Amino acid sequence: MRRLQVKSSAGNYDVKVGCGAWGALRKLKGYTSTFVLTEPGLWAQWGTKFAEDTGWSGVRPILVPSGETSKSLTMAGRVAAELLNRGADRRSLLVALGGGVVGDLGGFVASTYMRGIDYVQAPTTVLAQVDSSIGGKTAVNIHAMKNLIGTFSPPRMVLSEPAVLASLPPRAFQSGIYEAVKHAILAGPALFGWLEGKVAGLTPGQTPVLETLVARAAQVKVDVVSRDEREAGLRRVLNLGHTYGHALEEATGYRRFLHGEAVAWGMLMVTRLAELSGVLDSRVGSRIVRLVRAVGPLPALRGLKEEKVLGLLIRDKKAVGGKIHWVLPEGIGKVRVTPDVTDAAVASAFRDVQRGVWND
Amino acid sequence: MRRLQVKSSAGNYDVKVGCGAWGALRKLKGYTSTFVLTEPGLWAQWGTKFAEDTGWSGVRPILVPSGETSKSLTMAGRVAAELLNRGADRRSLLVALGGGVVGDLGGFVASTYMRGIDYVQAPTTVLAQVDSSIGGKTAVNIHAMKNLIGTFSPPRMVLSEPAVLASLPPRAFQSGIYEAVKHAILAGPALFGWLEGKVAGLTPGQTPVLETLVARAAQVKVDVVSRDEREAGLRRVLNLGHTYGHALEEATGYRRFLHGEAVAWGMLMVTRLAELSGVLDSRVGSRIVRLVRAVGPLPALRGLKEEKVLGLLIRDKKAVGGKIHWVLPEGIGKVRVTPDVTDAAVASAFRDVQRGVWND
Repeated sequence: MRRLQVKSSAGNYDVKVGCGAWGALRKLKGYTSTFVLTEPGLWAQWGTKFAEDTGWSGVRPILVPSGETSKSLTMAGRVAAELLNRGADRRSLLVALGGGVVGDLGGFVASTYMRGIDYVQAPTTVLAQVDSSIGGKTAVNIHAMKNLIGTFSPPRMVLSEPAVLASLPPRAFQSGIYEAVKHAILAGPALFGWLEGKVAGLTPGQTPVLETLVARAAQVKVDVVSRDEREAGLRRVLNLGHTYGHALEEATGYRRFLHGEAVAWGMLMVTRLAELSGVLDSRVGSRIVRLVRAVGPLPALRGLKEEKVLGLLIRDKKAVGGKIHWVLPEGIGKVRVTPDVTDAAVASAFRDVQRGVWND
Repeated sequence: MRRLQVKSSAGNYDVKVGCGAWGALRKLKGYTSTFVLTEPGLWAQWGTKFAEDTGWSGVRPILVPSGETSKSLTMAGRVAAELLNRGADRRSLLVALGGGVVGDLGGFVASTYMRGIDYVQAPTTVLAQVDSSIGGKTAVNIHAMKNLIGTFSPPRMVLSEPAVLASLPPRAFQSGIYEAVKHAILAGPALFGWLEGKVAGLTPGQTPVLETLVARAAQVKVDVVSRDEREAGLRRVLNLGHTYGHALEEATGYRRFLHGEAVAWGMLMVTRLAELSGVLDSRVGSRIVRLVRAVGPLPALRGLKEEKVLGLLIRDKKAVGGKIHWVLPEGIGKVRVTPDVTDAAVASAFRDVQRGVWND
């Protein structure tokens, strides 16, 4: 079991990564009642293990349909009403057992139910384990605008069980690995080089190597959010690949790409943008491209209108005063956050990656 | 202009009470854009003054229908979408101009929009000026459950303009005065005695005396929330009269009583409960009853089923582990928070007040 610690103004908390991580819930005391929020398919597969590991026999979870549409204010209201009906009070605990959707929704409900109750993240996807479960960001979507409503509210702890990754479909699995690649670009040559040696042929069932991957990639997120809890500055680096990525997701109605896949395309584009802006050596750029490509195939970019994608960039939540803060890789382990790129370069980077005329 | 200061972990903030208070918005700088959330009727009456006092000529407010039904997650989502459509970003400012509904809704949207933007409370009812605008509690309702979803998120400042009270209907005006009475019971003989001399014949147009009343009653709230921001303990005293009050509101579907009226009945019941529990001298109890009664007539309690009202008490949001923390007056300026009252006394207190067999 690996234990990472996140610093937070509302109290530090642990991220535990390893087989049997859910067992840490046995030691959480002092709650009037405990609740689990999860998805039906996940519960069918892992509910028995969860009940055994935690000793919560007979636990009857609150179920929400899988998929992004559950990340809505309407669903948040339904979960809150269900908590109330089951007698949850201000000293109750909610465990969010699932991927990013359950984690974001569960965290949002917990941080606002009766103005805030404790919650635990028990992430079950690579993406959630290396990224979204850590840092206390919670959110729901408003129509097509992802994460428009949310809170900064740290969990009580994060419990990442690598064994559950074995049941992930290949695409969902790979989608999460892209976020690990993002963390490696931010972290530096050690993690990046390690990933270069592991990514090819990696499968969801390789529990020991995944435990290491999750712990090492999660450490990057832990370090960043511990130094910048509320995204005042440093935390922006985590947005690497997300500016283009969000626009790609929105332009395709969130149907063509999984989140990590859109971020993967976004990382390729922003790598190109960094080259075009003169801040990244093309040999390093090629190394980034090779690692992203080694993860697996990406859904094609064909048919995506340049004007549409570029028009969506400015609506990104991170834009302030109409300015986008771009996160440009300058090397392995070094990024620059800057609004100073030309519109022409932004357009060229998209175009070069879409047309495959660069590095593909 | 009177200036009170609230201590808050997220930064202290001012409560300004006085004619022209809105003018303080002129001095708020550094926002990329500013927005006003309000109700159509209020804006029709006071929009011109607001624009003049603030210098925000041409301001086009975001309007929500007046009334409690606007305090919903659905409406929060609509307001957030409207903010997005108008280009609000993380450095935008939202002003909530209105009563408790606009304040709670606006505060909730602001505290969750893009995970939190700054907001200013510009309360326009007695209730909002002496109570709900101060302390950083925001909330929306889920079905009949009031304030089930919300946040603790302090405003940037609170600006209370007493002149706007002149347009309040008599019932709404009196409803707010009851909350001022509650604060006087908590504060002590000075404010209580002052109110005893002012309450009879008080009308919404008496701006100078209302400025004093609002400032003095608001000071009580300021003192409490400055010492207990997140309702860990002390803040519970503000719940005086609210345990019965909430049950009365819920039992009548929020149609018969205005909030302050329900709290007024609740104060009478809890005063009786304190007497029955042996912690309050009946002469002091009578003095409380007289002041509550002097504010004005209350909608009758007739037809309310005792079992129904008592059954709703336990669903109160402040109940923890099935225990209700009662706030019992022990004297003017002294209350006790305790779960230790008998069910029989709770029922008798309701019954005695409903039947008018006590002190009426």
